[in-house]
Amino acid sequence: MLENKNQERTSLEKLGEFGLIEQLTKNTPIHQESTEKGIGDDAAVLHFSNEKTLVSTDLLIEGVHFDLSYVPLKHLGYKAVMVNLSDIYAMNATATQITVSIAVSNRFPLEAIEELYAGIALACKKHKVDLVGGDTTSSTTGLLISITAIGKAIETDIAYRSGAQPNDLLVVTGDIGGAYMGLQVLEREKEVFKVNPNNQPDLEPYSYIVERQLKPEARKDIASLLKVLGVQPTAMIDISDGLSSEILHLCKQSNVGCNLFEDKIPLDPTVISACEEFKLDSTMVALSGGEDYELLFTVAQKDFEKIKGNPNLSIIGHMTEANEGSHLITRGNTKIPLTAQGWNSFQED
Amino acid sequence: MLENKNQERTSLEKLGEFGLIEQLTKNTPIHQESTEKGIGDDAAVLHFSNEKTLVSTDLLIEGVHFDLSYVPLKHLGYKAVMVNLSDIYAMNATATQITVSIAVSNRFPLEAIEELYAGIALACKKHKVDLVGGDTTSSTTGLLISITAIGKAIETDIAYRSGAQPNDLLVVTGDIGGAYMGLQVLEREKEVFKVNPNNQPDLEPYSYIVERQLKPEARKDIASLLKVLGVQPTAMIDISDGLSSEILHLCKQSNVGCNLFEDKIPLDPTVISACEEFKLDSTMVALSGGEDYELLFTVAQKDFEKIKGNPNLSIIGHMTEANEGSHLITRGNTKIPLTAQGWNSFQED
Repeated sequence: MLENKNQERTSLEKLGEFGLIEQLTKNTPIHQESTEKGIGDDAAVLHFSNEKTLVSTDLLIEGVHFDLSYVPLKHLGYKAVMVNLSDIYAMNATATQITVSIAVSNRFPLEAIEELYAGIALACKKHKVDLVGGDTTSSTTGLLISITAIGKAIETDIAYRSGAQPNDLLVVTGDIGGAYMGLQVLEREKEVFKVNPNNQPDLEPYSYIVERQLKPEARKDIASLLKVLGVQPTAMIDISDGLSSEILHLCKQSNVGCNLFEDKIPLDPTVISACEEFKLDSTMVALSGGEDYELLFTVAQKDFEKIKGNPNLSIIGHMTEANEGSHLITRGNTKIPLTAQGWNSFQED
Repeated sequence: MLENKNQERTSLEKLGEFGLIEQLTKNTPIHQESTEKGIGDDAAVLHFSNEKTLVSTDLLIEGVHFDLSYVPLKHLGYKAVMVNLSDIYAMNATATQITVSIAVSNRFPLEAIEELYAGIALACKKHKVDLVGGDTTSSTTGLLISITAIGKAIETDIAYRSGAQPNDLLVVTGDIGGAYMGLQVLEREKEVFKVNPNNQPDLEPYSYIVERQLKPEARKDIASLLKVLGVQPTAMIDISDGLSSEILHLCKQSNVGCNLFEDKIPLDPTVISACEEFKLDSTMVALSGGEDYELLFTVAQKDFEKIKGNPNLSIIGHMTEANEGSHLITRGNTKIPLTAQGWNSFQED
């Protein structure tokens, strides 16, 4: 998108900081009753009365978390919001507001930033979340997005990471590994493009996994689904760094162990076929891939009947006493200790 | 600080992302009753019951907002928090929590980041604010700090930018222009150092203004002072971009005009003498300098007796009907239209 030299380009210098904020936020709608004052003062004013307020924040940096050579800016804006809402949903809560700060170098014209905000606005609309503040500034290099998400929940609904008990069932929403395999496809196409810029990639067979990478959908639906099912999760976390890493977080903070069954891990057929094509082990991809933004949670054994067979939920294991450790039980019935293979942003490639 | 080659250095790669967060936040105290769960889960959990929740966010970027060649990291951490708390205080509210996200390149050893967090922790301690979350990631270039500040206030105490009425008095806290002149001194010393690295700068005569630049103190005290005086401000804003720019914000959002009296603008003697030395007009510095993090507010005429003579407060003008415009009344009794000379972060030098 940035490469199209024919399009209208408005330079950020001409517009200035205040002009940019006004331009980007002039039609910001308000969906939430709890938003009393959004953009336009020193601070937003919110009101949650008897509900608890949830706050979470994430930073996305060009060259570290995303590569603009294959990520459209509108998708990036959408995903940046999802990454943050996912943290609120992972408390079994409702997301209500976000603030968005961006730092952007002068190489981006206004139209590019408008694309980014179009994605942010779409995410807000779809998840009924209000954009209530932010900061816009110049950067010496690339693009950076910092989002803080705010949510609400009644006290008894909140699911911490620390509440899992031995014998609780371990449950994951949706399917996993797709976002990582989508990234492999995009990285490969980037290399092909470098060698032959005229090559038109056919991403059609990979559309599901590419969308999982570029436009993940945070699980807003799970809190209400569990409410309808009459299930209160004992612990919950979202899958940003990979299943294995998140399971170990739950185990550590709940002081329990875990048995995870390899054959229960939900994989989409496209993930399996892409793994074959890339010669990757699909279990390793599911355990270490990350960025799926599904939810991982535990429920008491007594809730088994309420969740079994639900197409949104897969029971993938159960919790144990802490001294039993955390293990993967393979298809061949071997017991392997789980290790965190989560993405380490300080590790050099 | 970064230049000391003898100190112990721990590389960020060795520590990893989770290790870094744990290391930085292991002794985070909680001061506020409203903090139910701080760092350590997908989101922090807060509770404000009948009070409104205030949210504000700011981004500080190396090379744009600060220059590490003369800003010690501990001061930077302190200032980054102040910049954000100031936005909450500018709603006539109490700051209660912050989240801090940092992006940092591998050129910073752990000890440097610990210095930064020591400044953040000191600011939190002094202002009784809880650090309840954040994100830590690598950056491809320099250092970046994104802070979201959260606060509380009862509804009737909140001062928006939009409540000023014609004839209201315009009041500023403390004195202004100091932060800008402190920056001039530091920039000059940096140039001197480039020419002669052995030159030891004598900053003693400039200590007040250098501190105003490096370690500003957000006005936590003003909300309670006004409460004690029995004064409810009709509008309020903080001075980050310069007096002139902030006055124009108040006027625009309240739909009023303003007469600002040059001889009433509070200037510290050090600011006046530094202006003489740098051949700068002290009124221009006060109007356009910025970064003082004082509060600017309006009160009804009837409150004049309650605030006059208070050493923390200077009455610098009064609001008018919108069609009268916004003017500076000079010492020579000339009426000059006020223009925003606020800092424009997209303008090239």
